[in-house]
Amino acid sequence: MKLPIFGLDEISQVAKPAVVFEAVRSALIAHAEGRTSVPAPMVLDFPEYAGDTHVKAGHVAGTPYFVVKVASSFGSVNNGLMLAMDATNGQPAAVLADQGKLTAWRTAAAGALITDAMTPVEVDEVAVLGTGEQALLQVLWLRELRPLRRVKVWGRRPEAVDRLCQQLQAAGLQATPDGLTGAPCVITTTAAREPLPLEAFRNAVHITGIGTDMPGKGELPPEVFAGALVATDDHAQCLHHGDFGNAVRAGVVGEEADAPVGAVLRDRAPHDAKSIADLTGVGATDAAVAAAVLGQLL
Amino acid sequence: MKLPIFGLDEISQVAKPAVVFEAVRSALIAHAEGRTSVPAPMVLDFPEYAGDTHVKAGHVAGTPYFVVKVASSFGSVNNGLMLAMDATNGQPAAVLADQGKLTAWRTAAAGALITDAMTPVEVDEVAVLGTGEQALLQVLWLRELRPLRRVKVWGRRPEAVDRLCQQLQAAGLQATPDGLTGAPCVITTTAAREPLPLEAFRNAVHITGIGTDMPGKGELPPEVFAGALVATDDHAQCLHHGDFGNAVRAGVVGEEADAPVGAVLRDRAPHDAKSIADLTGVGATDAAVAAAVLGQLL
Repeated sequence: MKLPIFGLDEISQVAKPAVVFEAVRSALIAHAEGRTSVPAPMVLDFPEYAGDTHVKAGHVAGTPYFVVKVASSFGSVNNGLMLAMDATNGQPAAVLADQGKLTAWRTAAAGALITDAMTPVEVDEVAVLGTGEQALLQVLWLRELRPLRRVKVWGRRPEAVDRLCQQLQAAGLQATPDGLTGAPCVITTTAAREPLPLEAFRNAVHITGIGTDMPGKGELPPEVFAGALVATDDHAQCLHHGDFGNAVRAGVVGEEADAPVGAVLRDRAPHDAKSIADLTGVGATDAAVAAAVLGQLL
Repeated sequence: MKLPIFGLDEISQVAKPAVVFEAVRSALIAHAEGRTSVPAPMVLDFPEYAGDTHVKAGHVAGTPYFVVKVASSFGSVNNGLMLAMDATNGQPAAVLADQGKLTAWRTAAAGALITDAMTPVEVDEVAVLGTGEQALLQVLWLRELRPLRRVKVWGRRPEAVDRLCQQLQAAGLQATPDGLTGAPCVITTTAAREPLPLEAFRNAVHITGIGTDMPGKGELPPEVFAGALVATDDHAQCLHHGDFGNAVRAGVVGEEADAPVGAVLRDRAPHDAKSIADLTGVGATDAAVAAAVLGQLL
């Protein structure tokens, strides 16, 4: 039994943004077109250790591997790995011991792709709400797709806001701790269970919601959905536990009002309306990124 | 990142029947008492390769590891592995590249335990319907728990019946190809989608059903459930896709008529009625077996 295990160092050397962007984009389009297999995730809770583990699986039809991903969050420590199997015979092909980074990168890529696709090309100012790993990644990966001039940051903890501003400045961006004053493009990356302050969205022509990924969470005030063009990475999942579902239950939008993120990425049709992208994470993107990485490692 | 991988040779050296029996017994009792965490399994289909993959997860409260198991069946080839994580921090602990054997053994152990517990002690004659791996294992593991004098075999393919009889004879058992004539104890291990011949069950005081593990399958004629004491390894799962559920939908038994297999194993209360055990496979037994094996390997 030979089962290669690749650690984060090896994975990092091949999982460059261009590779991840292309894999995620293809997977989201395939998902929109019904060419993916993505069973409902499993969740295990470990309340005595403030832990939970999510198991996701996915496959993009016609690609060489399917993937089972185990992602754990215990206290503030995230961990995870992906297991890739040969989709022609079920044989285990490799373990990607990525410590959860491939998930972070595919999330960054999905967010940046749809933010770029739905935000008018001239916009070079974004507000990011939240100060964690995804706040930084969403901005840096978006900058791979378009020039950014200014980033406004908001978070509940001033020291975390300061740190994120410094990280963004170190990356050559003009970053200021005034995220609540809004921007034409707003990206939310929090674990909020109550809507974020409405004022942060008042100038938004596009909003991308990243943080709402399980029942009970909710970042976007439902009223921002009124009249907006809505894209979801997975209709059923976003209806079940995304900001889109919260807005549907609040009666602001109809439950069939959304378009697939993958269709928006594929068609890039011009639009005039305000737009919102709701991302909850799709197992097919894990499979696609793992396949792309293994294509170079194996 | 150190992630030990143990192959089948290493696993076989420590996964002795006594170890597996104890782990499975404890896990089934814990499951009956609500001390396990077992999310609904995931299934991926690969129709172009006649393949399907089942992902199960499980944890027995208070034990050191939780397990995610990937089990694939492509054509006639089964494969699989288990991934064990530290239940206190979510860190990956080890990969058990067992090629599906731990699943085969925990299934054999669960079947043998409940067959032994529910069959009168003087019974030393069993009929086994089906000729695959579990047909052989169910008999051999039951013999670890009680003396067996005679085994009657039935299957659709005469050459498979002959081979199983020879395997059983090589193991020192009196085996004959007359399974349809029945026995006081009947074990079914087929992938049947239509009920097996009723005559095979006419003399049965106990029946253990192993093969019915997904919707569309069904081995036991519903009428054998009439008046029987029924034990299920997981109430919801057996109701959803076990022989018990088929009998409930046929109107032969009520949907609350079953007792947990784990409670039967714990209490071993005497009974006079005919009995049936319906096993669909519980992720907690995977976790328990993996933990027991890793306890010796790590």
